[in-house]
Amino acid sequence: MSKRKICVVVTARPSYSRVKTALKAIQEHPKLELQLVIAGSALLDRYGKAIDFIEKDGFKATEKVFMVLEGENPTAMAKTTGLGVMELSNVFYNLQPDAVITIADRFETIATSIAAAYQNIPLVHIQGGEVTGNIDEKVRHANTKLADIHLVASEDARERVIKMGEDTDKVITTGCPSIDIAREIAESPNLDFNPVEKYGGVGASVNWENGYIVVMQHPVTNEYNQAKEDVLKTLRAVHKLNYPTFWFWPNVDAGSDGTSNGIRSFREQHQPENIHFFKNMEPSDFLRLLKNSKCLIGNSSVGIRECSFLGIPVVNIGTRQNRRKRGVNVIDVDYDENVIYNAIVSSMERSGLEPEHIYGDGNSGRKIADILAELELSYFKTIAY
Amino acid sequence: MSKRKICVVVTARPSYSRVKTALKAIQEHPKLELQLVIAGSALLDRYGKAIDFIEKDGFKATEKVFMVLEGENPTAMAKTTGLGVMELSNVFYNLQPDAVITIADRFETIATSIAAAYQNIPLVHIQGGEVTGNIDEKVRHANTKLADIHLVASEDARERVIKMGEDTDKVITTGCPSIDIAREIAESPNLDFNPVEKYGGVGASVNWENGYIVVMQHPVTNEYNQAKEDVLKTLRAVHKLNYPTFWFWPNVDAGSDGTSNGIRSFREQHQPENIHFFKNMEPSDFLRLLKNSKCLIGNSSVGIRECSFLGIPVVNIGTRQNRRKRGVNVIDVDYDENVIYNAIVSSMERSGLEPEHIYGDGNSGRKIADILAELELSYFKTIAY
Amino acid sequence: MSKRKICVVVTARPSYSRVKTALKAIQEHPKLELQLVIAGSALLDRYGKAIDFIEKDGFKATEKVFMVLEGENPTAMAKTTGLGVMELSNVFYNLQPDAVITIADRFETIATSIAAAYQNIPLVHIQGGEVTGNIDEKVRHANTKLADIHLVASEDARERVIKMGEDTDKVITTGCPSIDIAREIAESPNLDFNPVEKYGGVGASVNWENGYIVVMQHPVTNEYNQAKEDVLKTLRAVHKLNYPTFWFWPNVDAGSDGTSNGIRSFREQHQPENIHFFKNMEPSDFLRLLKNSKCLIGNSSVGIRECSFLGIPVVNIGTRQNRRKRGVNVIDVDYDENVIYNAIVSSMERSGLEPEHIYGDGNSGRKIADILAELELSYFKTIAY
Amino acid sequence: MSKRKICVVVTARPSYSRVKTALKAIQEHPKLELQLVIAGSALLDRYGKAIDFIEKDGFKATEKVFMVLEGENPTAMAKTTGLGVMELSNVFYNLQPDAVITIADRFETIATSIAAAYQNIPLVHIQGGEVTGNIDEKVRHANTKLADIHLVASEDARERVIKMGEDTDKVITTGCPSIDIAREIAESPNLDFNPVEKYGGVGASVNWENGYIVVMQHPVTNEYNQAKEDVLKTLRAVHKLNYPTFWFWPNVDAGSDGTSNGIRSFREQHQPENIHFFKNMEPSDFLRLLKNSKCLIGNSSVGIRECSFLGIPVVNIGTRQNRRKRGVNVIDVDYDENVIYNAIVSSMERSGLEPEHIYGDGNSGRKIADILAELELSYFKTIAY
Repeated sequence: MSKRKICVVVTARPSYSRVKTALKAIQEHPKLELQLVIAGSALLDRYGKAIDFIEKDGFKATEKVFMVLEGENPTAMAKTTGLGVMELSNVFYNLQPDAVITIADRFETIATSIAAAYQNIPLVHIQGGEVTGNIDEKVRHANTKLADIHLVASEDARERVIKMGEDTDKVITTGCPSIDIAREIAESPNLDFNPVEKYGGVGASVNWENGYIVVMQHPVTNEYNQAKEDVLKTLRAVHKLNYPTFWFWPNVDAGSDGTSNGIRSFREQHQPENIHFFKNMEPSDFLRLLKNSKCLIGNSSVGIRECSFLGIPVVNIGTRQNRRKRGVNVIDVDYDENVIYNAIVSSMERSGLEPEHIYGDGNSGRKIADILAELELSYFKTIAY
Repeated sequence: MSKRKICVVVTARPSYSRVKTALKAIQEHPKLELQLVIAGSALLDRYGKAIDFIEKDGFKATEKVFMVLEGENPTAMAKTTGLGVMELSNVFYNLQPDAVITIADRFETIATSIAAAYQNIPLVHIQGGEVTGNIDEKVRHANTKLADIHLVASEDARERVIKMGEDTDKVITTGCPSIDIAREIAESPNLDFNPVEKYGGVGASVNWENGYIVVMQHPVTNEYNQAKEDVLKTLRAVHKLNYPTFWFWPNVDAGSDGTSNGIRSFREQHQPENIHFFKNMEPSDFLRLLKNSKCLIGNSSVGIRECSFLGIPVVNIGTRQNRRKRGVNVIDVDYDENVIYNAIVSSMERSGLEPEHIYGDGNSGRKIADILAELELSYFKTIAY
Repeated sequence: MSKRKICVVVTARPSYSRVKTALKAIQEHPKLELQLVIAGSALLDRYGKAIDFIEKDGFKATEKVFMVLEGENPTAMAKTTGLGVMELSNVFYNLQPDAVITIADRFETIATSIAAAYQNIPLVHIQGGEVTGNIDEKVRHANTKLADIHLVASEDARERVIKMGEDTDKVITTGCPSIDIAREIAESPNLDFNPVEKYGGVGASVNWENGYIVVMQHPVTNEYNQAKEDVLKTLRAVHKLNYPTFWFWPNVDAGSDGTSNGIRSFREQHQPENIHFFKNMEPSDFLRLLKNSKCLIGNSSVGIRECSFLGIPVVNIGTRQNRRKRGVNVIDVDYDENVIYNAIVSSMERSGLEPEHIYGDGNSGRKIADILAELELSYFKTIAY
Repeated sequence: MSKRKICVVVTARPSYSRVKTALKAIQEHPKLELQLVIAGSALLDRYGKAIDFIEKDGFKATEKVFMVLEGENPTAMAKTTGLGVMELSNVFYNLQPDAVITIADRFETIATSIAAAYQNIPLVHIQGGEVTGNIDEKVRHANTKLADIHLVASEDARERVIKMGEDTDKVITTGCPSIDIAREIAESPNLDFNPVEKYGGVGASVNWENGYIVVMQHPVTNEYNQAKEDVLKTLRAVHKLNYPTFWFWPNVDAGSDGTSNGIRSFREQHQPENIHFFKNMEPSDFLRLLKNSKCLIGNSSVGIRECSFLGIPVVNIGTRQNRRKRGVNVIDVDYDENVIYNAIVSSMERSGLEPEHIYGDGNSGRKIADILAELELSYFKTIAY
């Protein structure tokens, strides 16, 4: 019997870490063949070149697709997506997969959805049904309406997808594969590498061995003119705290220039002595770094998902994670220097939090592969009401 | 006070006739300025060149966009859409509209949606919430999830859009503007032109003056290999009936080659003496032709919408109009020569049907313009549950 | 030692027949590996779907690329080319060939040239240096300036390429591979198939067994409004002649609608009883058909090239083949019904013409493969003066 | 009489400064109407956003076109060009210009050429016929073969264009419009602004008031892996010299990352106290800065063109300006730290050089406008031999 060909399109570093264990499980499954398409910012130096990590993890790109338009503004986002539709249409036409997987909600993921759905290839959407309240949410739900099978991360997400009219049989809670990596980390949590030696980075040489915090703050797309101002508030709070800090540059999105410029100008002006900056890190190293940190600050979804499983305190700033189901580990704050400062101080004292399984129990990758191997694949659907 | 700039993207002949009165009402509204983008098959000879009708109706294209990929297959549909996203992104960037209108559910309409939504331009979707059961439905609901305001044609459509999580304030039943034209026709229904003299066409010279029927059958996208076989059944039934018939060629879609080839090969082989073929017709002439016909056969949405208002019997074949709300004028049949034949015979006797207002009362264009002038325009939304 | 990977991009039926023997020789060469990209109209039904012939000849497409924009107008030609650049860039990036071959002068061939040259892949141009006097010529010479190696068909072409500043070592006269097929035909010239039975076609059932003529007339791109008028003159002359005729539809180009419409309307009006129409024919069958004909009429380059080798009289109409080196077999005429008529009558009496080797001696395919295997490949060049 | 519509496509900062006076002359000419398309990197922050200067100079963009693909590698260059063809085809279709102007030799300029030539719009190429020896040269000569009128900068360029087969009547030496700005500077050469106050920049606060040198070094496209190494040699030489230096970041091109990274890493490591870095400068300010400098170092064409008119010594490094006609002001050197160092020292002593008019006498803009107003515009051409 021939294997089912499962084509996964990875377009960015964070998307990769969200599906890594699923990729592995697909690759190893006796009834599945993995077709891995690496596209978009995952190929680009400026955004941490996820392809290097991916290949190091033992995967091989079946096809690579350049598609990111310069500009980091809304027009470039739209055109990148259009280009993606055109390129991925060709890729799917030539690869003839049995199913295509599109991941979550980045703007370009809808390119995968269109290229597959219009060519009558069953489309699987991972991590639908969540709520964030900006263009990402529009994209996520549009992906849901184009997809045939929905593998969601949490029960509340499943309910939402079903309410939108999807067939209950086709909406399955698998948890999020990123939690699988968190589980591995939780099982052997030692920080077994020197972050600065391994990843270089720029900025102060901080004394992190007796404790540190981690910051990862992305621009919020629909407010991109404020990205610089927003990040400066966090920078000031963290600078004032004067505690050893590892800070990660934002990923590609309209406005990342604003955030990046904010960081650059703050560095030029203040040369903060407690902050070391990283461009990126292998996902498992990143989680290990978090696991050993006092807390995470910013607006990354890692704070909501993995950190709840790992029991790490999080200061979640602003609206980016709004209405995502969260655990007790999260303190939500507004863009306000003092409020951020105080929340960090409180969070640093919250050690020993219990793990929560909101986004999966750590076996999502394998569950996803099993479903892809067994579930009936079809591209016909109609709304349930 | 400056006028609100409303950009409408028309990509095909049928879409135009669906919004014609809305375009007129926008153009004439003191608080609105119309930006009309003519794109896709609306520019192409092979698909009836809607732009000629549009200009004859007194509209002027603000911008024209070529974007249709050759092939009439699923890959070409996908790539056309990708190209559309890229082109329309530029168009909107340069025109800076206050709102963009995307129409219904053709595959390329999602290009309009993405180009607008990603650039933070409030997006208005006309004719969402309907159910058809193929790629059109996926596209229609994805448009809904990308759009900020929903102007729907019927009450059942409105309920569906709200169930999908849209804000009730943003979902307004305006009826379908195509019904406005039907209303004008109903008010002075005389067939005031000679169809063959005015539109030429090919095939038999039929004696239509004492009664005739009309056929319009489109391919069903997801079954496009069957398009030829499907249309042959209707051709045989109509041929056997031997009653004067006006037959319209299908519009552009994956598979129209199948339908067109079916028609061509039937003509070569049988030279049916009761059928005259038209490529296209001005929408109002087409409705006038229907109003004076015995019945309409095929799978066009005109049978469901305008014909219910006009009280014209319809033989609706196959799944293309599945679950669209219909009036008593419609008889649904399967792809079966004899069943089709019998349904036509029965329908031809059903004269004097009462008009029904399922899809509007004939004032939709004006309602739409008023809403666009007054409703708050925003591009931020989040799911209601 | 690893084989050199030679990537050939075939975008149209006539281009394929020009390189068929070279493809075979590359495929069979011990030092070469063929990467065959089938693109553009070569994939499309409307243009004879060359891919079917290609696969029947034992080749396999390494990659297929849809890129033809609908419209058959100058804007569509330009956009098709742009799309081709984008798609082929990806293809070459993923295939990593050691050299890319671009063929002749069709508008989309410059897409191949740009995608290769910009990615520093040595570019080989086949059939540069010829003169035709419209957009094809601009494209051909632009290809020359982007290419690193020039394999030309005739001595006068070689001189022209060198005059344009190319390095004499890199300009090699190989002859045209299409002549290789002509040589095979000349060696066993019997018409071993029934053209109508094998290829169908439409129009009159002509009695061709005692002699026939062949017509192939393409639109001239820069005069495309005249295409219909031009072809009607030939149609009238051939109709008046009333001699069995095989007529071939034109290939895809801006204006082919004009020519095609001319043919269609002439057929509807006159139903010429001496003309049978074909859509296309396998290249070797076509040459065999020519070899057994009284003469060829039209403006195809086959009349200039293959027919000089085969010794077949040609009536060459209009400017399309201007300044191409020709043999004694060609009579050049203007677009004039009577002149065309008289030239056909004269040509039909010119049997027994001697073969001429202007465009090759019938071993071009092998020569090309040998050069590709041995010549130094480089992508650096500079003008010679 | 209606004005001739002249469409100029500006895609980058240096291209703008090359045509600025021609744009002004076209705008002011009574028989001409300027259609200004701003595209590509001219719209992007990362490359100095030329559009800001352009608008400040009193021009208004008729249309803006985003088209730059991320990646700064050869594949991105090719795809940017393809995207440009598609976008510009639409732009020209909608603007309907009487002639289109393409400038020089950047990779994306061929997009302008194809979009115009394929749509039968007379194409004017500015600054053809020059020799540089890499992909730029291929592009420049391909532009020549697509263009109908050639307005060249120097006599040797004119000879080359004619040798390539262009009609002598259509090749006119106008000089380079960038020299017009140099003439204005030469007429009132005072440094009337404080460069650091006006343009900010980063790096050392240098004491430039008693003399300074200027560096501008671009990556050489076909050797882009060496870009970093190349620039480091110049950096070391200039660092060792320890003389006040203004250094300009490179423009967008495959490899600019290499050059930029070289500069960044050198700064991090050495924090050179004699170098201040600028991102960009208004063209006239830049020339004024040069006019008051001791010498220019690098590989910018400004050294060859404007500096010969201004009489400024130049140390020209590497192959980028190979075979461009140069004046006595230029010393050519290889990539060698010591050789560069010594050449700078010598050049700094060469004050009082005589102006040379190799690239124009300072009235090119007006000459170009006059030619565009009077010369017959045609899109038909054929090679002269």
